[in-house]
Amino acid sequence: MVVGGGEAHVITLLAPPGSLITGASVSLDATEAHHLRVRRGDAGESLRLVDGRGRVGYGVVTLGTHGAHVTLERVEDAPLPARLVLAVGAGDKERFAWLAEKATELGVTDLVPIESERTVSVASRVRDGTIERIQRRATEALKQCEGTWAPKIHGSTPLERFLQEAPPGRRWVMDQQGEELPTYVGADAVTCLIGPEGGFTDLELRACEGAGFSRVTLGGLVLRFETAAVAAAAWVGIARGRVANG
Amino acid sequence: MVVGGGEAHVITLLAPPGSLITGASVSLDATEAHHLRVRRGDAGESLRLVDGRGRVGYGVVTLGTHGAHVTLERVEDAPLPARLVLAVGAGDKERFAWLAEKATELGVTDLVPIESERTVSVASRVRDGTIERIQRRATEALKQCEGTWAPKIHGSTPLERFLQEAPPGRRWVMDQQGEELPTYVGADAVTCLIGPEGGFTDLELRACEGAGFSRVTLGGLVLRFETAAVAAAAWVGIARGRVANG
Repeated sequence: MVVGGGEAHVITLLAPPGSLITGASVSLDATEAHHLRVRRGDAGESLRLVDGRGRVGYGVVTLGTHGAHVTLERVEDAPLPARLVLAVGAGDKERFAWLAEKATELGVTDLVPIESERTVSVASRVRDGTIERIQRRATEALKQCEGTWAPKIHGSTPLERFLQEAPPGRRWVMDQQGEELPTYVGADAVTCLIGPEGGFTDLELRACEGAGFSRVTLGGLVLRFETAAVAAAAWVGIARGRVANG
Repeated sequence: MVVGGGEAHVITLLAPPGSLITGASVSLDATEAHHLRVRRGDAGESLRLVDGRGRVGYGVVTLGTHGAHVTLERVEDAPLPARLVLAVGAGDKERFAWLAEKATELGVTDLVPIESERTVSVASRVRDGTIERIQRRATEALKQCEGTWAPKIHGSTPLERFLQEAPPGRRWVMDQQGEELPTYVGADAVTCLIGPEGGFTDLELRACEGAGFSRVTLGGLVLRFETAAVAAAAWVGIARGRVANG
Protein backbone atom coordinates (compact mmCIF):
# COMPACT_ATOMS: atom_id res chain seq x y z
CA MET A 1 0.00 0.00 0.00
CA VAL A 2 2.95 2.31 -0.24
CA VAL A 3 3.02 4.36 -3.41
CA GLY A 4 4.61 7.50 -4.71
CA GLY A 5 7.73 8.78 -6.39
CA GLY A 6 9.32 5.40 -6.90
CA GLU A 7 7.37 4.48 -10.02
CA ALA A 8 6.33 6.34 -13.13
CA HIS A 9 2.57 6.90 -13.08
CA VAL A 10 -0.01 9.42 -14.22
CA ILE A 11 0.55 12.83 -12.62
CA THR A 12 -2.30 13.97 -10.36
CA LEU A 13 -3.03 17.69 -10.07
CA LEU A 14 -5.72 19.68 -8.27
CA ALA A 15 -8.70 21.48 -9.78
CA PRO A 16 -11.39 23.60 -8.08
CA PRO A 17 -14.63 21.82 -7.08
CA GLY A 18 -17.23 22.27 -9.83
CA SER A 19 -14.67 22.49 -12.65
CA LEU A 20 -14.48 18.83 -13.59
CA ILE A 21 -17.02 18.20 -16.40
CA THR A 22 -16.50 15.86 -19.37
CA GLY A 23 -15.41 17.85 -22.41
CA ALA A 24 -14.51 20.95 -20.42
CA SER A 25 -11.13 22.64 -20.68
CA VAL A 26 -9.80 23.26 -17.19
CA SER A 27 -7.18 25.94 -16.66
CA LEU A 28 -4.38 25.00 -14.24
CA ASP A 29 -3.66 27.61 -11.59
CA ALA A 30 -0.11 28.86 -11.02
CA THR A 31 0.68 26.28 -8.30
CA GLU A 32 -0.53 23.34 -10.37
CA ALA A 33 1.16 24.59 -13.55
CA HIS A 34 4.40 24.85 -11.55
CA HIS A 35 3.95 21.31 -10.21
CA LEU A 36 3.43 20.10 -13.82
CA ARG A 37 6.74 21.69 -14.87
CA VAL A 38 8.57 20.19 -11.86
CA ARG A 39 7.25 16.77 -12.83
CA ARG A 40 8.36 17.51 -16.42
CA GLY A 41 4.84 17.22 -17.79
CA ASP A 42 4.48 18.71 -21.28
CA ALA A 43 1.80 19.28 -23.93
CA GLY A 44 0.08 15.99 -24.77
CA GLU A 45 0.73 14.57 -21.28
CA SER A 46 -2.13 12.51 -19.80
CA LEU A 47 -3.19 13.91 -16.43
CA ARG A 48 -5.49 13.05 -13.56
CA LEU A 49 -7.27 16.00 -11.93
CA VAL A 50 -8.96 15.72 -8.55
CA ASP A 51 -11.11 18.30 -6.79
CA GLY A 52 -10.85 16.88 -3.29
CA ARG A 53 -14.60 16.24 -3.24
CA GLY A 54 -14.58 12.82 -4.91
CA ARG A 55 -14.56 13.85 -8.56
CA VAL A 56 -11.71 12.74 -10.82
CA GLY A 57 -11.12 13.97 -14.37
CA TYR A 58 -8.80 12.39 -16.94
CA GLY A 59 -7.49 14.48 -19.80
CA VAL A 60 -4.60 15.76 -21.84
CA VAL A 61 -2.51 18.91 -21.38
CA THR A 62 -2.56 21.69 -23.94
CA LEU A 63 -0.25 24.69 -23.60
CA GLY A 64 -1.63 27.98 -24.89
CA THR A 65 -0.86 31.68 -24.60
CA HIS A 66 -2.91 31.79 -21.39
CA GLY A 67 -1.10 28.95 -19.64
CA ALA A 68 -1.72 25.24 -19.28
CA HIS A 69 -5.15 23.68 -19.81
CA VAL A 70 -6.47 20.16 -19.50
CA THR A 71 -9.20 18.98 -21.86
CA LEU A 72 -11.22 16.41 -19.97
CA GLU A 73 -11.99 13.20 -21.82
CA ARG A 74 -13.60 11.39 -18.92
CA VAL A 75 -14.91 12.20 -15.44
CA GLU A 76 -15.67 9.81 -12.57
CA ASP A 77 -17.21 10.21 -9.13
CA ALA A 78 -15.68 8.21 -6.30
CA PRO A 79 -18.22 6.97 -3.76
CA LEU A 80 -18.60 8.96 -0.56
CA PRO A 81 -16.19 7.44 1.99
CA ALA A 82 -17.41 6.18 5.36
CA ARG A 83 -17.43 9.16 7.70
CA LEU A 84 -14.44 9.52 10.00
CA VAL A 85 -14.34 12.69 12.08
CA LEU A 86 -11.17 13.57 13.99
CA ALA A 87 -11.82 16.30 16.53
CA VAL A 88 -8.45 17.26 17.98
CA GLY A 89 -7.31 19.77 20.55
CA ALA A 90 -6.24 22.89 18.61
CA GLY A 91 -2.53 22.62 19.39
CA ASP A 92 0.53 23.88 17.56
CA LYS A 93 -0.47 24.83 14.02
CA GLU A 94 2.59 23.29 12.33
CA ARG A 95 1.91 19.91 13.90
CA PHE A 96 -1.76 20.30 13.10
CA ALA A 97 -0.91 20.98 9.44
CA TRP A 98 1.19 17.85 9.38
CA LEU A 99 -1.76 15.95 10.89
CA ALA A 100 -3.99 17.30 8.09
CA GLU A 101 -1.66 15.79 5.49
CA LYS A 102 -1.70 12.40 7.21
CA ALA A 103 -5.49 12.65 7.69
CA THR A 104 -5.88 12.75 3.90
CA GLU A 105 -3.90 9.54 3.50
CA LEU A 106 -5.81 7.84 6.31
CA GLY A 107 -9.26 8.55 4.86
CA VAL A 108 -10.37 11.08 7.46
CA THR A 109 -13.44 12.98 6.20
CA ASP A 110 -13.54 15.82 8.76
CA LEU A 111 -10.79 17.35 10.88
CA VAL A 112 -12.00 19.71 13.59
CA PRO A 113 -9.64 21.79 15.77
CA ILE A 114 -11.19 21.80 19.24
CA GLU A 115 -10.83 24.66 21.73
CA SER A 116 -10.66 23.40 25.29
CA GLU A 117 -9.37 24.57 28.63
CA ARG A 118 -5.81 23.49 27.84
CA THR A 119 -5.54 24.85 24.29
CA VAL A 120 -5.90 28.50 25.27
CA SER A 121 -2.37 28.67 26.66
CA VAL A 122 -0.76 27.29 23.47
CA ALA A 123 0.63 30.42 21.78
CA SER A 124 1.18 28.67 18.43
CA ARG A 125 -2.24 27.04 18.37
CA VAL A 126 -4.46 26.66 15.32
CA ARG A 127 -6.54 29.78 14.74
CA ASP A 128 -9.14 30.54 12.11
CA GLY A 129 -6.62 32.45 9.97
CA THR A 130 -4.63 29.23 9.55
CA ILE A 131 -7.49 26.99 8.41
CA GLU A 132 -7.22 27.81 4.71
CA ARG A 133 -3.53 26.92 4.65
CA ILE A 134 -4.17 23.68 6.54
CA GLN A 135 -6.97 22.82 4.09
CA ARG A 136 -4.58 23.40 1.20
CA ARG A 137 -2.01 21.10 2.85
CA ALA A 138 -4.66 18.37 3.22
CA THR A 139 -5.81 18.70 -0.38
CA GLU A 140 -2.23 18.79 -1.69
CA ALA A 141 -1.68 15.37 -0.08
CA LEU A 142 -4.11 13.87 -2.62
CA LYS A 143 -1.41 14.25 -5.26
CA GLN A 144 0.82 11.75 -3.49
CA CYS A 145 -1.69 9.26 -2.11
CA GLU A 146 -3.87 8.85 -5.21
CA GLY A 147 -6.96 9.67 -3.17
CA THR A 148 -10.02 11.56 -4.32
CA TRP A 149 -11.52 12.96 -1.13
CA ALA A 150 -9.68 15.44 1.09
CA PRO A 151 -10.84 15.90 4.66
CA LYS A 152 -12.80 19.06 5.31
CA ILE A 153 -10.81 21.21 7.76
CA HIS A 154 -13.34 22.89 10.01
CA GLY A 155 -12.95 26.16 11.84
CA SER A 156 -11.77 26.14 15.43
CA THR A 157 -14.70 24.88 17.52
CA PRO A 158 -15.27 25.08 21.30
CA LEU A 159 -15.62 21.60 22.80
CA GLU A 160 -19.05 22.39 24.19
CA ARG A 161 -20.39 23.33 20.75
CA PHE A 162 -18.77 20.30 19.11
CA LEU A 163 -20.46 17.98 21.59
CA GLN A 164 -23.85 19.37 20.52
CA GLU A 165 -23.09 19.10 16.79
CA ALA A 166 -21.12 15.82 16.55
CA PRO A 167 -22.51 13.39 13.97
CA PRO A 168 -24.38 10.24 15.02
CA GLY A 169 -22.63 6.86 14.93
CA ARG A 170 -19.75 5.68 17.08
CA ARG A 171 -18.44 8.40 19.37
CA TRP A 172 -15.16 7.91 21.14
CA VAL A 173 -13.03 10.10 23.35
CA MET A 174 -9.44 8.94 23.79
CA ASP A 175 -8.52 8.34 27.42
CA GLN A 176 -5.74 6.20 28.81
CA GLN A 177 -8.16 4.64 31.32
CA GLY A 178 -10.77 3.89 28.65
CA GLU A 179 -12.06 0.64 27.17
CA GLU A 180 -10.34 -1.26 24.38
CA LEU A 181 -10.99 -0.12 20.82
CA PRO A 182 -13.25 -2.46 18.85
CA THR A 183 -11.50 -4.49 16.16
CA TYR A 184 -14.39 -4.27 13.73
CA VAL A 185 -15.97 -1.01 12.68
CA GLY A 186 -17.65 -1.56 9.32
CA ALA A 187 -19.02 1.48 7.51
CA ASP A 188 -20.41 3.24 10.62
CA ALA A 189 -19.65 6.91 11.06
CA VAL A 190 -16.89 7.24 13.67
CA THR A 191 -16.02 10.36 15.62
CA CYS A 192 -12.75 10.38 17.58
CA LEU A 193 -12.15 13.15 20.11
CA ILE A 194 -8.51 13.67 21.05
CA GLY A 195 -7.43 16.08 23.76
CA PRO A 196 -4.70 18.70 23.44
CA GLU A 197 -1.28 18.43 25.08
CA GLY A 198 -2.15 17.99 28.73
CA GLY A 199 -5.39 16.22 27.81
CA PHE A 200 -8.97 17.17 28.50
CA THR A 201 -9.83 18.10 32.08
CA ASP A 202 -11.92 15.66 34.13
CA LEU A 203 -14.86 18.01 33.77
CA GLU A 204 -14.48 18.02 29.98
CA LEU A 205 -14.20 14.23 29.88
CA ARG A 206 -17.43 13.93 31.86
CA ALA A 207 -19.14 16.33 29.45
CA CYS A 208 -17.98 14.11 26.55
CA GLU A 209 -19.49 11.07 28.26
CA GLY A 210 -22.68 13.01 28.84
CA ALA A 211 -22.85 13.63 25.07
CA GLY A 212 -22.60 9.91 24.33
CA PHE A 213 -18.85 9.62 23.84
CA SER A 214 -17.30 6.39 25.19
CA ARG A 215 -13.84 6.53 26.66
CA VAL A 216 -11.46 4.33 24.63
CA THR A 217 -7.74 3.78 25.02
CA LEU A 218 -4.87 3.75 22.55
CA GLY A 219 -3.03 1.40 24.92
CA GLY A 220 -0.37 2.39 27.39
CA LEU A 221 1.22 4.82 24.97
CA VAL A 222 1.87 8.44 25.88
CA LEU A 223 1.43 10.36 22.66
CA ARG A 224 1.52 13.90 21.36
CA PHE A 225 -1.84 15.07 20.07
CA GLU A 226 -1.02 14.61 16.40
CA THR A 227 0.40 11.12 17.00
CA ALA A 228 -2.68 10.09 19.00
CA ALA A 229 -4.89 11.36 16.19
CA VAL A 230 -2.93 9.45 13.54
CA ALA A 231 -2.94 6.29 15.69
CA ALA A 232 -6.72 6.50 16.14
CA ALA A 233 -7.34 7.13 12.43
CA ALA A 234 -5.00 4.28 11.46
CA TRP A 235 -6.84 1.93 13.83
CA VAL A 236 -10.23 2.87 12.34
CA GLY A 237 -8.89 2.55 8.78
CA ILE A 238 -7.45 -0.90 9.42
CA ALA A 239 -10.49 -2.05 11.43
CA ARG A 240 -12.78 -0.90 8.61
CA GLY A 241 -10.87 -3.17 6.23
CA ARG A 242 -11.57 -6.19 8.43
CA VAL A 243 -14.30 -8.50 7.20
CA ALA A 244 -15.91 -9.48 10.50
CA ASN A 245 -15.76 -9.39 14.26
CA GLY A 246 -12.72 -10.93 15.84
CA MET B 1 -2.71 9.53 26.95
CA VAL B 2 -1.88 12.91 25.55
CA VAL B 3 0.67 14.80 27.59
CA GLY B 4 3.05 17.66 27.17
CA GLY B 5 3.27 21.41 27.51
CA GLY B 6 -0.24 21.94 28.83
CA GLU B 7 0.54 21.05 32.40
CA ALA B 8 3.32 21.88 34.79
CA HIS B 9 5.41 18.79 35.43
CA VAL B 10 9.00 17.79 36.10
CA ILE B 11 11.32 18.79 33.24
CA THR B 12 12.97 15.83 31.49
CA LEU B 13 16.46 16.25 30.02
CA LEU B 14 18.88 13.87 28.33
CA ALA B 15 22.09 12.42 29.75
CA PRO B 16 24.65 10.11 28.12
CA PRO B 17 24.24 6.36 28.70
CA GLY B 18 26.40 5.28 31.63
CA SER B 19 26.21 8.64 33.42
CA LEU B 20 23.17 8.00 35.60
CA ILE B 21 24.39 6.66 38.97
CA THR B 22 22.87 7.46 42.36
CA GLY B 23 24.89 10.21 44.07
CA ALA B 24 26.70 11.21 40.90
CA SER B 25 26.81 14.79 39.66
CA VAL B 26 25.91 14.85 35.97
CA SER B 27 27.01 17.78 33.85
CA LEU B 28 24.41 19.00 31.34
CA ASP B 29 25.72 19.46 27.82
CA ALA B 30 25.14 22.73 25.95
CA THR B 31 21.91 21.56 24.29
CA GLU B 32 20.37 20.36 27.55
CA ALA B 33 21.51 23.42 29.50
CA HIS B 34 19.87 25.57 26.81
CA HIS B 35 16.67 23.54 27.07
CA LEU B 36 16.71 24.05 30.85
CA ARG B 37 16.95 27.84 30.38
CA VAL B 38 14.13 27.83 27.81
CA ARG B 39 11.95 25.96 30.28
CA ARG B 40 13.02 28.50 32.93
CA GLY B 41 14.59 25.88 35.13
CA ASP B 42 16.88 27.34 37.79
CA ALA B 43 19.18 26.20 40.60
CA GLY B 44 17.25 23.97 42.99
CA GLU B 45 14.88 22.77 40.26
CA SER B 46 13.95 19.08 40.42
CA LEU B 47 14.81 17.31 37.17
CA ARG B 48 14.33 13.95 35.51
CA LEU B 49 17.24 12.73 33.39
CA VAL B 50 16.89 9.89 30.88
CA ASP B 51 19.63 8.19 28.89
CA GLY B 52 17.39 6.65 26.22
CA ARG B 53 18.42 3.18 27.37
CA GLY B 54 15.85 2.74 30.12
CA ARG B 55 17.62 4.45 32.99
CA VAL B 56 16.02 7.42 34.73
CA GLY B 57 17.72 9.68 37.27
CA TYR B 58 16.00 12.15 39.59
CA GLY B 59 17.95 15.04 41.02
CA VAL B 60 18.32 18.73 41.63
CA VAL B 61 20.07 21.38 39.53
CA THR B 62 23.14 23.18 40.77
CA LEU B 63 24.68 26.02 38.78
CA GLY B 64 28.45 26.35 39.02
CA THR B 65 31.25 28.10 37.19
CA HIS B 66 31.46 25.14 34.81
CA GLY B 67 27.78 25.15 33.84
CA ALA B 68 24.74 23.28 35.10
CA HIS B 69 24.96 20.01 37.01
CA VAL B 70 22.38 17.62 38.37
CA THR B 71 23.09 15.76 41.59
CA LEU B 72 21.24 12.46 41.38
CA GLU B 73 19.24 11.46 44.43
CA ARG B 74 17.65 8.38 42.93
CA VAL B 75 18.06 6.20 39.84
CA GLU B 76 15.60 3.70 38.38
CA ASP B 77 15.75 1.20 35.54
CA ALA B 78 12.64 0.83 33.39
CA PRO B 79 12.01 -2.73 32.23
CA LEU B 80 13.09 -3.65 28.71
CA PRO B 81 10.11 -2.99 26.44
CA ALA B 82 8.68 -5.71 24.21
CA ARG B 83 10.67 -5.68 21.00
CA LEU B 84 9.15 -3.83 18.06
CA VAL B 85 11.35 -3.54 14.98
CA LEU B 86 10.30 -1.22 12.16
CA ALA B 87 12.31 -1.90 9.02
CA VAL B 88 11.37 0.77 6.52
CA GLY B 89 12.45 1.59 2.98
CA ALA B 90 15.19 4.22 3.27
CA GLY B 91 13.20 7.08 1.72
CA ASP B 92 13.46 10.82 2.12
CA LYS B 93 15.60 11.59 5.18
CA GLU B 94 13.41 14.41 6.49
CA ARG B 95 10.34 12.21 6.54
CA PHE B 96 12.43 9.41 8.02
CA ALA B 97 13.60 11.75 10.81
CA TRP B 98 9.99 12.62 11.52
CA LEU B 99 9.20 8.89 11.64
CA ALA B 100 12.02 8.43 14.18
CA GLU B 101 10.37 10.96 16.49
CA LYS B 102 7.00 9.21 16.24
CA ALA B 103 8.70 5.83 16.69
CA THR B 104 9.89 6.94 20.13
CA GLU B 105 6.35 7.82 21.19
CA LEU B 106 4.98 4.55 19.79
CA GLY B 107 7.41 2.33 21.70
CA VAL B 108 9.45 1.16 18.70
CA THR B 109 12.71 -0.45 19.89
CA ASP B 110 14.56 -0.61 16.55
CA LEU B 111 14.21 1.46 13.41
CA VAL B 112 16.10 0.12 10.40
CA PRO B 113 16.39 2.00 7.08
CA ILE B 114 16.17 -0.67 4.36
CA GLU B 115 17.89 -0.41 0.98
CA SER B 116 15.81 -1.99 -1.75
CA GLU B 117 15.47 -1.77 -5.52
CA ARG B 118 13.23 1.30 -5.32
CA THR B 119 15.18 3.27 -2.71
CA VAL B 120 18.29 3.72 -4.86
CA SER B 121 16.61 6.34 -7.07
CA VAL B 122 15.53 8.53 -4.11
CA ALA B 123 18.08 11.35 -4.14
CA SER B 124 17.16 12.56 -0.63
CA ARG B 125 17.20 9.08 0.92
CA VAL B 126 18.57 8.19 4.34
CA ARG B 127 22.30 7.57 4.19
CA ASP B 128 24.71 6.54 6.91
CA GLY B 129 25.85 10.15 7.46
CA THR B 130 22.31 11.05 8.55
CA ILE B 131 21.85 8.29 11.14
CA GLU B 132 23.38 10.17 14.05
CA ARG B 133 21.05 13.15 13.50
CA ILE B 134 18.04 10.86 13.21
CA GLN B 135 19.09 9.08 16.43
CA ARG B 136 19.28 12.44 18.17
CA ARG B 137 15.79 13.33 16.93
CA ALA B 138 14.45 10.02 18.29
CA THR B 139 16.13 10.49 21.67
CA GLU B 140 15.01 14.13 21.91
CA ALA B 141 11.41 12.92 21.61
CA LEU B 142 11.77 11.30 25.07
CA LYS B 143 11.59 14.78 26.60
CA GLN B 144 8.04 15.26 25.39
CA CYS B 145 6.60 11.76 25.73
CA GLU B 146 7.96 10.91 29.19
CA GLY B 147 9.47 7.72 27.82
CA THR B 148 12.68 6.06 28.94
CA TRP B 149 13.75 3.98 25.94
CA ALA B 150 14.56 5.54 22.57
CA PRO B 151 14.54 3.33 19.50
CA LYS B 152 17.96 2.35 18.22
CA ILE B 153 18.37 3.83 14.74
CA HIS B 154 20.34 1.30 12.72
CA GLY B 155 22.57 1.97 9.74
CA SER B 156 21.17 1.63 6.26
CA THR B 157 20.77 -2.12 5.63
CA PRO B 158 20.22 -3.96 2.33
CA LEU B 159 16.96 -5.93 2.39
CA GLU B 160 18.76 -9.21 1.73
CA ARG B 161 20.99 -8.78 4.77
CA PHE B 162 18.08 -7.68 6.95
CA LEU B 163 16.13 -10.83 6.05
CA GLN B 164 19.04 -12.93 7.34
CA GLU B 165 19.43 -10.93 10.56
CA ALA B 166 15.82 -10.17 11.51
CA PRO B 167 14.93 -11.15 15.08
CA PRO B 168 12.70 -14.16 15.82
CA GLY B 169 9.04 -13.67 16.73
CA ARG B 170 6.26 -12.34 14.54
CA ARG B 171 7.51 -11.22 11.13
CA TRP B 172 5.25 -9.18 8.92
CA VAL B 173 5.70 -7.46 5.59
CA MET B 174 3.06 -4.88 4.72
CA ASP B 175 1.25 -5.64 1.47
CA GLN B 176 -2.14 -4.42 0.35
CA GLN B 177 -3.10 -7.96 -0.67
CA GLY B 178 -1.99 -9.45 2.64
CA GLU B 179 -3.91 -11.04 5.51
CA GLU B 180 -5.58 -9.08 8.28
CA LEU B 181 -3.43 -7.94 11.18
CA PRO B 182 -4.00 -9.88 14.40
CA THR B 183 -5.84 -7.98 17.12
CA TYR B 184 -3.80 -9.51 19.94
CA VAL B 185 -0.05 -9.46 20.04
CA GLY B 186 1.02 -9.84 23.67
CA ALA B 187 4.70 -9.41 24.47
CA ASP B 188 6.05 -11.25 21.40
CA ALA B 189 8.81 -9.59 19.41
CA VAL B 190 7.27 -8.07 16.27
CA THR B 191 9.13 -7.06 13.12
CA CYS B 192 7.28 -4.95 10.56
CA LEU B 193 8.81 -4.53 7.10
CA ILE B 194 7.49 -1.55 5.14
CA GLY B 195 8.46 -0.90 1.54
CA PRO B 196 9.68 2.42 0.15
CA GLU B 197 7.59 4.70 -2.08
CA GLY B 198 6.66 2.44 -4.97
CA GLY B 199 6.71 -0.58 -2.66
CA PHE B 200 8.86 -3.68 -2.69
CA THR B 201 9.14 -5.50 -6.02
CA ASP B 202 7.37 -8.86 -6.40
CA LEU B 203 10.76 -10.55 -6.22
CA GLU B 204 11.56 -8.78 -2.95
CA LEU B 205 8.15 -9.68 -1.50
CA ARG B 206 8.76 -13.33 -2.35
CA ALA B 207 12.18 -13.17 -0.67
CA CYS B 208 10.48 -11.76 2.46
CA GLU B 209 8.04 -14.66 2.48
CA GLY B 210 10.94 -17.06 2.02
CA ALA B 211 12.50 -15.59 5.19
CA GLY B 212 9.33 -16.25 7.19
CA PHE B 213 7.61 -12.88 6.80
CA SER B 214 3.82 -13.06 6.43
CA ARG B 215 2.10 -10.54 4.19
CA VAL B 216 -0.30 -8.40 6.23
CA THR B 217 -2.43 -5.48 5.16
CA LEU B 218 -3.07 -2.04 6.63
CA GLY B 219 -6.48 -2.09 4.94
CA GLY B 220 -7.35 -0.37 1.71
CA LEU B 221 -5.29 2.68 2.56
CA VAL B 222 -2.66 4.04 0.19
CA LEU B 223 0.03 5.47 2.44
CA ARG B 224 3.39 7.15 2.24
CA PHE B 225 6.15 5.08 3.80
CA GLU B 226 6.31 7.03 7.03
CA THR B 227 2.53 6.95 7.47
CA ALA B 228 2.43 3.19 6.84
CA ALA B 229 5.18 2.73 9.43
CA VAL B 230 3.36 4.83 12.03
CA ALA B 231 0.06 3.02 11.31
CA ALA B 232 1.74 -0.38 11.77
CA ALA B 233 3.47 0.69 14.99
CA ALA B 234 0.23 2.20 16.35
CA TRP B 235 -1.62 -1.02 15.59
CA VAL B 236 0.99 -3.12 17.42
CA GLY B 237 1.03 -0.70 20.37
CA ILE B 238 -2.73 -0.77 20.73
CA ALA B 239 -2.96 -4.54 20.14
CA ARG B 240 -0.27 -5.12 22.82
CA GLY B 241 -2.45 -3.25 25.29
CA ARG B 242 -5.35 -5.65 24.66
CA VAL B 243 -5.87 -8.24 27.34
CA ALA B 244 -6.86 -11.24 25.21
CA ASN B 245 -7.76 -12.54 21.78
CA GLY B 246 -10.77 -10.99 20.12
